[in-house]
Amino acid sequence: MGELRKDPVVKRWVIINPQGKKRLFLEKTVEEEKKSHVENCPFCEGNESRTPAEILAFREPGSASNSPGWSVRVAANKFPALRIEGELERQGIGVYDQMQGIGAHEVIIDSPSHSDSIADLDESHVEKILRAYRDRIVDLKRDKRFKYVLVFKNYGSIAGASLDHPHSQLIATPIIPKRVKEELKGCLEFYKYKERCLFCDIIREEKRSQLRIVAENDLFLSFTPYASRFPYEICIIPKVHCGDFGNIQDGETYLLASILKETMKRLKILLDDPPYNYVIHTTPFRFPANIRDYHWHIEIIPQIIRMAGFEWGTGFYLNPITPEDAARELREVEI
Amino acid sequence: MGELRKDPVVKRWVIINPQGKKRLFLEKTVEEEKKSHVENCPFCEGNESRTPAEILAFREPGSASNSPGWSVRVAANKFPALRIEGELERQGIGVYDQMQGIGAHEVIIDSPSHSDSIADLDESHVEKILRAYRDRIVDLKRDKRFKYVLVFKNYGSIAGASLDHPHSQLIATPIIPKRVKEELKGCLEFYKYKERCLFCDIIREEKRSQLRIVAENDLFLSFTPYASRFPYEICIIPKVHCGDFGNIQDGETYLLASILKETMKRLKILLDDPPYNYVIHTTPFRFPANIRDYHWHIEIIPQIIRMAGFEWGTGFYLNPITPEDAARELREVEI
Repeated sequence: MGELRKDPVVKRWVIINPQGKKRLFLEKTVEEEKKSHVENCPFCEGNESRTPAEILAFREPGSASNSPGWSVRVAANKFPALRIEGELERQGIGVYDQMQGIGAHEVIIDSPSHSDSIADLDESHVEKILRAYRDRIVDLKRDKRFKYVLVFKNYGSIAGASLDHPHSQLIATPIIPKRVKEELKGCLEFYKYKERCLFCDIIREEKRSQLRIVAENDLFLSFTPYASRFPYEICIIPKVHCGDFGNIQDGETYLLASILKETMKRLKILLDDPPYNYVIHTTPFRFPANIRDYHWHIEIIPQIIRMAGFEWGTGFYLNPITPEDAARELREVEI
Repeated sequence: MGELRKDPVVKRWVIINPQGKKRLFLEKTVEEEKKSHVENCPFCEGNESRTPAEILAFREPGSASNSPGWSVRVAANKFPALRIEGELERQGIGVYDQMQGIGAHEVIIDSPSHSDSIADLDESHVEKILRAYRDRIVDLKRDKRFKYVLVFKNYGSIAGASLDHPHSQLIATPIIPKRVKEELKGCLEFYKYKERCLFCDIIREEKRSQLRIVAENDLFLSFTPYASRFPYEICIIPKVHCGDFGNIQDGETYLLASILKETMKRLKILLDDPPYNYVIHTTPFRFPANIRDYHWHIEIIPQIIRMAGFEWGTGFYLNPITPEDAARELREVEI
């Protein structure tokens, strides 16, 4: 059973879970990469029995749970980083703080096809993936032990994916992740000073300068952040203030799917299908419903350069591509 | 010319430097890896003219600067992330903060041999490397534009080294890196509450429990941190309170060299010469000389697993090896 441990100096929580080992050290089977169906892939259609029981799926009318006929499917992770059963049992051990590794760890299978990524799927399919994220967040919010749901995607083994079949993951945690806490703090400070949402100001600045915009539609903006840590790092954000991704409406998900797909397609063409990660940053559970000082967004990080020691050890990054060049190159891709 | 940009939300500074591009995308030449001398390696003895002019070297009596006869040699980085000439010119650009990419970026060549790493060199040689770190920190402190010197090592291309020849680097910066700031804040909070150094408490806890100790001598402790983010992550720390690495005395450097070499040798044998990073965390410049609430230390991070999206995006890590197992395995290595 895993546990959660808190760094006493910088207050960062870490999951220590030896059961996760096997999964993390797996290397991908290169020859399986570009097939549309792989016989022993647990995420391919027809192999539904190889995953834990289905939690949610978008299915053809009349098709049964845990059988073919789905387009997006959610199941528990077979090698969970955190476990759903049990109590947190917070305790101190000398100078240290610890709690049980309680949480939910689910897999969102993007498509029945072994090779279709977000860049390849059509908008209405990507929309279902986004609705699955939202619906799972809303459901997990009811569990009072959880403070946050991390939705993320590892695409490609270099980005940490242990299975080739495109999928996303979510982890519900009894803590608020450190980065999200820092963002909340920075936004609250700004709000106290200016009585405006900092992200809303960033959106205005990006629309004014036009230097870093990758794509835009009526509701969403895709841009390379001014202080990007990584080459071709991208942020997708709703243009109208909104703190909680869980509140996204059915009328809005199509435009989010559309800008996400367009962004990923531009990245795929420009950088030759790079490995990447994305993660949704949203308001933690049990925060005010209409939070004025936080704004949900998606961070996309292509994994095309290696991090060096001083970046790991210091939180101080060196990025060899200007965000302005990155945005221009991405905009100029013909799609 | 590079620049420094500040993330408005989490207040993280990033170096944006297109000139660094070439260096970062280089891949290592595998066949050169285990040779003791490589004809066109700029760090091998005899090729001194291929680096910028020598800043410091430990040399045989009578040998001339920028010629053979050295054991440890320091020169400016040929592809610097930051440049030494100029003023900071801090400015706001809309909602963003920016300054010129001013700083120093130097290379500490560990040894004339192309293949000897810290684990292979003898203690008195490692001691010279550590004294070079210290002497450069003390010298750079006199430049009033700088607030910090980051000393770090990237070992192996996976860890970000662009040249195989073992070397360390230092970057003097006009800012305090985010991670160091967070540590200073955490330590100050603890000190205000307890009137004790938090790291001193951690040392007492580690010596009491004995669960995570890798090596120990009269002055230093090598241990796996309780909330390790990475498998086999190690911290080396002076057992007696000391805030500033720049204050390390000649009588102490041998024992630090000894525990660093022993630790790296244990890592090398256990994990088959893994890529790794290490970084020295020390008190920033122009802090009180006898700071009571901060304690310098070296963080060592073997690069043996791939980071996944939620770790990059959230500062929330998943570590599949318990620090207790890691320390036991490292202790049990026969050296």
